[in-house]
Amino acid sequence: MSALWSTDPRDALRVTDSFDLTGFDRASTPGFAGDKAAAATLMAERGELLSELQERLYAQGRSGAAPRVLVVVQGLDTAGKGGIARHVMGMVDPQGVALRSFGVPTEEERAHHYLWRIEKALPRPGQIGLFDRSHYEDVLVVRVDNLVGPEVWGERYEEINAWEKQLVDDGTVILKFAMMVSKDEQALRLMERLDRPDKRWKYSAGDLKTRSQWDAYQEAYADVFRLTSTEYAPWYVLPADRKWYPRVAVTEILTRTMIELGLRWPVPEWDVAEQRRLLAADMPAPVLAASLAETAAVVGEANAQSMEIANEAAELLAEGRGGTAAEEARSAAREKTAQLEADLAATLEHKRALLQDKDPALAAETPSSPTPEKKVGKVKKSKKGKK
Amino acid sequence: MSALWSTDPRDALRVTDSFDLTGFDRASTPGFAGDKAAAATLMAERGELLSELQERLYAQGRSGAAPRVLVVVQGLDTAGKGGIARHVMGMVDPQGVALRSFGVPTEEERAHHYLWRIEKALPRPGQIGLFDRSHYEDVLVVRVDNLVGPEVWGERYEEINAWEKQLVDDGTVILKFAMMVSKDEQALRLMERLDRPDKRWKYSAGDLKTRSQWDAYQEAYADVFRLTSTEYAPWYVLPADRKWYPRVAVTEILTRTMIELGLRWPVPEWDVAEQRRLLAADMPAPVLAASLAETAAVVGEANAQSMEIANEAAELLAEGRGGTAAEEARSAAREKTAQLEADLAATLEHKRALLQDKDPALAAETPSSPTPEKKVGKVKKSKKGKK
Repeated sequence: MSALWSTDPRDALRVTDSFDLTGFDRASTPGFAGDKAAAATLMAERGELLSELQERLYAQGRSGAAPRVLVVVQGLDTAGKGGIARHVMGMVDPQGVALRSFGVPTEEERAHHYLWRIEKALPRPGQIGLFDRSHYEDVLVVRVDNLVGPEVWGERYEEINAWEKQLVDDGTVILKFAMMVSKDEQALRLMERLDRPDKRWKYSAGDLKTRSQWDAYQEAYADVFRLTSTEYAPWYVLPADRKWYPRVAVTEILTRTMIELGLRWPVPEWDVAEQRRLLAADMPAPVLAASLAETAAVVGEANAQSMEIANEAAELLAEGRGGTAAEEARSAAREKTAQLEADLAATLEHKRALLQDKDPALAAETPSSPTPEKKVGKVKKSKKGKK
Repeated sequence: MSALWSTDPRDALRVTDSFDLTGFDRASTPGFAGDKAAAATLMAERGELLSELQERLYAQGRSGAAPRVLVVVQGLDTAGKGGIARHVMGMVDPQGVALRSFGVPTEEERAHHYLWRIEKALPRPGQIGLFDRSHYEDVLVVRVDNLVGPEVWGERYEEINAWEKQLVDDGTVILKFAMMVSKDEQALRLMERLDRPDKRWKYSAGDLKTRSQWDAYQEAYADVFRLTSTEYAPWYVLPADRKWYPRVAVTEILTRTMIELGLRWPVPEWDVAEQRRLLAADMPAPVLAASLAETAAVVGEANAQSMEIANEAAELLAEGRGGTAAEEARSAAREKTAQLEADLAATLEHKRALLQDKDPALAAETPSSPTPEKKVGKVKKSKKGKK
């Protein structure tokens, strides 16, 4: 499926020195070789991968140090920012996601430095945070509406860069997405909000004022891209006239970024066999036998699913890097498979011994739990349905 | 589909004076006449309804006063609290949901009244908040572990009731769910966490200590149900040995509760025709013509979907109430249909007039946008996919 991306979307969308917002085609689909239907299929597939990666991130966060992932989404009214929250973040466990939207600052917020409310809203380690608007409003609406003078907002680009640098140094991954619609497409979408009784609540009479400042906003965005797209926190500019494109692009970039974090399930600080022995001591023999009988199937399926994820991740990594790195990733995946199989064998042996101690007769009756046939091709069902 | 509920789950699960936790069958499925597969189908169906109801709630919250919905989920380890967050809340737009889990209080939290951290985490008007554990921990773990004496926790039941009463009076809907697994099922689930390398992070060595206090927890829960199930904030006790049952039950109760809130799309404070005229003035004629050409189809489909939701809601209300109330709900739905049709006709006429003023030749060419055939039966696709 990933052959749908002829170019890594990070390369296709990252702001370069020669980037020109004026000539930017907002109906284009850079790097993507498929249509809307192909995008939907790919998103569902990536959703499963992303869902597992997010769970690993969350698990790491629970057991101590973990990266935090901050997704910044900017764009004018109707660009589709809410759709990213709903359709991309909606694919992963809501418990691991922190959504924040930034509107007009409150009185308390205005009394502080403009980064104060942003800092407070940062995702915790192990979380994916999504900012619907962000500190960039302080060089966008603030600049366009002259809420402060150019001597003030003019200093902010460097300040933002320095602030983001520190976040990245402290273990935050920052992904910045700007959704760019054309002026005509915005008109069509605003008109739809006026026409649909179920969407009128999204319209505000202020939207037309902002629209009337179109050119000033485009200039302000161009400066944002020119001045704050850094190596450690680049901007990805998404053509947004086709609603499906930004969604599939953000999904892909987030997925690839999370794969490269090399997330592993945390290693327990307690001893598995010891805890199993203690728990088994507190289980009636028939319950332990029931647990033993289902072990091979349950753990085997979970392992197969983990390996499928690992393999998909290796494939994606391979695409971007080729040669040695790809072979290393595949070799790591093979090693992981062997580890999981050995772990399951040890689990079965241990549980059988525990049951034997508790009730030899029952142990003799309990099926020997053969390792199930490989199900790697079969476990395509959503991870969301698995938990 | 809703015939799957032979009894309104609120009636089947609400704590009554005669409730006895000791004899409570934790593998039962009170009020539900179907199996796991039927539950999955019903959940998907309710998910669409819930998704639209949640959007209406959110819309109301954006434009001023709106109820807040607080879902409290309690239960011992492995009971499935996280599954409610993921599988029920995962069905609606994450932007309208506020999830909070309450672990061991921080030092700052301990320095305050136990309700302090709870108050701070309440959903805003228009939000659905989900508490994974809650202030009830202050009469559960706190009591079982003797973190304060009985003279302290003993006062809390009444205090909690009074606090919840005030919340309800201020426009909060409180739904309290307790997920009850059997001791054997808990052992099976803890063992699975030990056995699966991808689930070990969910296990804590403290889980066995809590398990060893099983009886004390059951007593503490029994007192919670006895002392804090009020008319304004009743407890629903969910048998949780079958993972699917609490999910479908919470979905159903939340959906029915939200239907009864009578949520409507907020009425705009601005004038639709005026805004349309201003926007049209800023649109090139061909763009306005394109907008006009798609109006009937786009708005017609949205209206059909709204009406399908309204009808489903009316059916559900009818079940619970019968007779007059049901007929009133159906009659309201018919009236709403007529309103939506009149609104669409006015929209078409207005847009045609605006195009006529701007470019009479183009207006003559633009199709007359017949109202599309009713699609009520066809718009079964997820609301989530629609936005």
